[in-house]
Amino acid sequence: MIIYWLQLLGTAVFACSGALEAGRKRLDLVGVSAVSFITAMGGGTVRDVLLDREALLWTADPAYLYVSIGAGLMTWALARIWIPSRRLLLVLDAGGMALFAISGVEIAEHMGQSAGIAVVMGLITGAAGGVFRDVLCGEIPLIFRRSELYVSAALVGCLVYLCAKALNVPAATASLLGVLVIFFLRVAALKWNWSLPVFVLPEK
Amino acid sequence: MIIYWLQLLGTAVFACSGALEAGRKRLDLVGVSAVSFITAMGGGTVRDVLLDREALLWTADPAYLYVSIGAGLMTWALARIWIPSRRLLLVLDAGGMALFAISGVEIAEHMGQSAGIAVVMGLITGAAGGVFRDVLCGEIPLIFRRSELYVSAALVGCLVYLCAKALNVPAATASLLGVLVIFFLRVAALKWNWSLPVFVLPEK
Amino acid sequence: MIIYWLQLLGTAVFACSGALEAGRKRLDLVGVSAVSFITAMGGGTVRDVLLDREALLWTADPAYLYVSIGAGLMTWALARIWIPSRRLLLVLDAGGMALFAISGVEIAEHMGQSAGIAVVMGLITGAAGGVFRDVLCGEIPLIFRRSELYVSAALVGCLVYLCAKALNVPAATASLLGVLVIFFLRVAALKWNWSLPVFVLPEK
Repeated sequence: MIIYWLQLLGTAVFACSGALEAGRKRLDLVGVSAVSFITAMGGGTVRDVLLDREALLWTADPAYLYVSIGAGLMTWALARIWIPSRRLLLVLDAGGMALFAISGVEIAEHMGQSAGIAVVMGLITGAAGGVFRDVLCGEIPLIFRRSELYVSAALVGCLVYLCAKALNVPAATASLLGVLVIFFLRVAALKWNWSLPVFVLPEK
Repeated sequence: MIIYWLQLLGTAVFACSGALEAGRKRLDLVGVSAVSFITAMGGGTVRDVLLDREALLWTADPAYLYVSIGAGLMTWALARIWIPSRRLLLVLDAGGMALFAISGVEIAEHMGQSAGIAVVMGLITGAAGGVFRDVLCGEIPLIFRRSELYVSAALVGCLVYLCAKALNVPAATASLLGVLVIFFLRVAALKWNWSLPVFVLPEK
Repeated sequence: MIIYWLQLLGTAVFACSGALEAGRKRLDLVGVSAVSFITAMGGGTVRDVLLDREALLWTADPAYLYVSIGAGLMTWALARIWIPSRRLLLVLDAGGMALFAISGVEIAEHMGQSAGIAVVMGLITGAAGGVFRDVLCGEIPLIFRRSELYVSAALVGCLVYLCAKALNVPAATASLLGVLVIFFLRVAALKWNWSLPVFVLPEK
């Protein structure tokens, strides 16, 4: 139950980041709603389509639909008065991403996918929404450029979760462990500016 | 039967708008065909994938495939002689979008989706093709930017359709009502320049 | 069996082209892996989703997953020492695309799709990965712009394959014929600079 509320919180945070990006690009109300919704639900939707699940996250439970669009519009309304600090947003986003990634791994596992595929599904669930947001706003996805351990933090957390389960740790503990690893790795990377090497192709 | 022909007309109009955008970006014949096809069939395809229908619009009935590519190539061939006026295209496009949106709602409803999801599917069916067109051509989607009530007209029409059905209006009448509301709302917005407020994030 | 190894080779080549494009855009390690994977597996994934197959190419056989990401990272590692010549890459890419396109047609045919749909699936399998690569890297897809017969070579090869089968040529021979036609047509177009006319919309 707590997991469910945390996921809705993650949804709201992702939607909020989508709405702010939409504001930076001067989109209108429809654009704000659409980008918020796609940022929040994009990752889970791609995962569900790739795994051929019968119902998507948000067709099965429309609460996700309303929360994501509602959070986007509220961001739009509130931005006249108060814009959440970048730091607060990044920390909340780290939490949302951690929850989404581990829930993606769990779902793929329950469907009998192998470990490698489950990890990929976790990464897609956590990160694809942000990729859609950036492509729709005409940018090269942020997480593909120099960023402070985003997908890589999710990767480590997913592997920790799988190792914990392989060592017979109870499922709930393993999930919690994975979420915490992702969250703290990402927050630490933000604080101390850790990032991955960049591939710069030497010009001919 | 008339609905079917109107849908093919809508397909052709969407394909035509895709081909003209491709011409603005100096794409070649393959690019013109691909963008035309994706503009016309993109919305219905995303809807069918999200709803996990067995067959897509255009795999079930290849007429859509041939009409969309044919219309794109014909636009390419005719553009040397005559380019349809922007106004004519916008009016036809409003008609196509209205038909696509209401047909999307109907399909989602027949599959037993809730009202909120059905509306989202209607909006996707009507609007996603244009989003793909713009992303493929390297633009921020037009309908997310300041535009004259496009998705919002579709939203109002879909709600009118659902209300009409809830009031026991016969399905065919409700559909017609929804299509007309979208069409005239969009055309009126074009004529009198109605649009939604834009979200401009104040720079720090 | 040889086909399987050739397909993995095609996968590696596509991944390599994705990694090099990522290098041109200064993406980090995660970006390189993601773009490599999406370039290599994008076409087959879209085809499998559109045809509603139960398992994707790479969820059914994770070798594709590991080969595509491995090839991308190896390109990243090797690019400090040696960048494969553009000509070598283009020839290998032509081979990979030819194999992917014909395998896409075959799969659609086995699922009972009509000839027109099978051809579209072949083209998507061969070309969609490159479209994703370019959209993710913020470019208008290369194959939509003036290019030396890419999708059109695939189209001719797919039609040759279908005609051969209609004339009762054995399936293996027909496939080989289709692959060779695509490969040599593309290589010849590269050598002699054949391309399709471009649609330039006259400005008003």
